[in-house]
Parts: sequence; C-alpha cells; structure tokens
Amino acid sequence: MPITDAIPPPVADLIEAFSVLPGIGPKTASRLTFHLIRAPEQQAMQLATALKAMVELTTFCSICANITEQDPCEICSDVSRDEHVLAVVEEPLDVVALERTGAFRGRYHVLHGVISPLNGIGPEDLRIEELRLRLRSGEVGEVILATNPGMEGDATAMYLRSVLAEFELRITTLARGLPTGGDIEYVDELTLTRALQGRKE
Amino acid sequence: MPITDAIPPPVADLIEAFSVLPGIGPKTASRLTFHLIRAPEQQAMQLATALKAMVELTTFCSICANITEQDPCEICSDVSRDEHVLAVVEEPLDVVALERTGAFRGRYHVLHGVISPLNGIGPEDLRIEELRLRLRSGEVGEVILATNPGMEGDATAMYLRSVLAEFELRITTLARGLPTGGDIEYVDELTLTRALQGRKE
Repeated sequence: MPITDAIPPPVADLIEAFSVLPGIGPKTASRLTFHLIRAPEQQAMQLATALKAMVELTTFCSICANITEQDPCEICSDVSRDEHVLAVVEEPLDVVALERTGAFRGRYHVLHGVISPLNGIGPEDLRIEELRLRLRSGEVGEVILATNPGMEGDATAMYLRSVLAEFELRITTLARGLPTGGDIEYVDELTLTRALQGRKE
Repeated sequence: MPITDAIPPPVADLIEAFSVLPGIGPKTASRLTFHLIRAPEQQAMQLATALKAMVELTTFCSICANITEQDPCEICSDVSRDEHVLAVVEEPLDVVALERTGAFRGRYHVLHGVISPLNGIGPEDLRIEELRLRLRSGEVGEVILATNPGMEGDATAMYLRSVLAEFELRITTLARGLPTGGDIEYVDELTLTRALQGRKE
C-alpha cells in the first residue's frame, strides 16, 4: 500500500489547508485536523460556515478600508461623527479598541499593516494611497497617527508624516507614558523615559 | 455606536470559531481571521471546503477505528495483510508512520488518544473495548503495543497489558534505544539508560 493511501485525501487536504495559515506549521495543522475529526461534527461545520460567511458577507469599506458588511461602513456613513478628525490605525481591531473608549468621535482610516522591511511589507502594501486621495477632498483638519507604539508602528508613523507634509493638517500621535494601573517598578525603561520626557506640570 | 457594531458579526463569528480549537487563544484566532480577510478569498474558501469534505467524506473504520473514506478501511479490507499481528497505536498518524517503514504487514488498532489523568482522559475514552471485542474473535496471535515512548504512552501500554491478560497472546512493545543518526553526546539520559539496558551481543 502506498503511503499516501494511509491517510485519506480529505484529511490530508485539511492538514494542508490549515498549514497555509500564518504561524501554523504541519504539526499544529495535523493536531487541529485530528482534533476536529474527533470533535462533534458540528465544530468543523461551524468553522466552515463562519469562513464562508466571512468571505461572502464582508468587504472593505471603500472610504476607510475597515471591514464591513455594508459599504460605506457604519462609521463612515454615520453623519453624527466628526469628519474633520481622522485616526489612522494599523488594523480593524484597533478601530474596535478606540471605539471601546468612547473618547473618539472622528473617522478612521485602516492601513492594514505596518511598514516592515523584515516581512517584506513596504508602503505600497498599505492603504496609504487611499489615505492621500481621501485627504485631498480637504475636509480633514487633523490626522491622528494611531499606529502601535513599537518600532514598526513608529517607523510607519514617521513615513506617514512625510507623506502628509503636502497637506495643511494638524498631525498628532497618541500620548506615550505610563499605562494606567501600571507599576513604575515593573515598567520598561523606554516607557519610563517617554513618561519622563512627556511629564506635565 | 455600540462596541459590537465596530466588528462585523461574520468576523466576530470566525474569531469565535477559531478560538474553540485547542491551543488557539483569542489573540491567535483574530490573527488568523484578519489574515484570511486580507488573503485571496480562495484561501478561506479552500479551508471551508476542506472542513466540509472531511466531515462528509471520512468516517472511522468499524474494525480498526482508523480514519477512512470507506468502511472497512483499505488496510482492514486488504486480504494480503497478516491478520495475526495487530499494532495498537495512539493516533491515525502513527499508522502513517508505521506504513512508511514498509516493515509492518499486519493490521492496526487506533486508540484515539492515551490515558492521561491530567487531561481527564481515562481508558473509557479510548477504543479499548473495541480492541477487546476484536481480540475475542481469536484470529490475532500477537499484539504490538506501539504507543508513544513517553510517560502517558507507557502508562497506556501498561494498562493495556493488564486488559489483554485474559487472552492467549504474545504481547510486544517497540524496541527502545538510540535513534538512528542520533548522537550519544546529545541523547537524553533515559534514552541512553534504555539503550544500555537493552544492549545486545
């Protein structure tokens, strides 16, 4: 009997489909597959249905590039939101995080990533051209560069700053300092340095 | 806008469906989801199709409990295979590994796990009763306990030994010793101890 016959093609296909996902190697892929084989059928079907629904029901908002079921998305079509302030974020989940604060009533622009030479992601892979076109309409007065507070996020923000130089804009970034509830004793040096540099009367 | 509206339900559902899988927390689940959102649609659909095919096309062999598209499976229905020797393995992938050697021409019995009190898996969760019923037919003369060479595998083999005491059988286990291509310098102490204990003239 050939080796390939020892594992049924549908099982091999599922292992293959899982191992294409980022961070999932062949070992994890077979662990997941064999878990689903043993779990109630409904678990695999639920995942299959969710995948299909995601592909069929969601799209990118043609204005802010966030993921949405309707285009334009709810935020972009909400006239009560301030169209003069635009928060530029890396990921759709950053929108969720900012919305959760209830402290932001402006609009968003989702880049879908950060500039990351190590991962081969350059400015042309992000929604930067879309941002530029959007700013050309002239309605936006302030852009908040809300990328993640790390090396790649900072580099992306710096790049955006140069790109946005052509516009008459107030460009801001989120404040850096001690996280609320944090403990000075355990905070990393860079955060503490930033907190010192940004100290207030 | 409520928080839940910031992330479309199909996206939330997919994150939820991923995070049910073992070893996949909420963070990995959203990473996978957002990867698939950005990847070509075909990638998500391929996974969905593979899941559906796995559920619809595969079943457990009613004889050996291996995963198969036909029941009985190809190995169980292959009359050229020796029905007197039975290898008891933990997982379907162990069958693949043993088949790959080409050195085994007997039949298999898949337990679908090991006894693992820490994970709440007892003998009743494994295909042990099926093994017993199978041995009652009296055709099998040798059972190879081919569980993994670790604590749980060894404990399971020990348990099986007691269960199989009621039958007139030759019970064997796979040889322990140095892995071919291994380096004595780097081999763990237990493996080296076993290699010493099992030394041959």
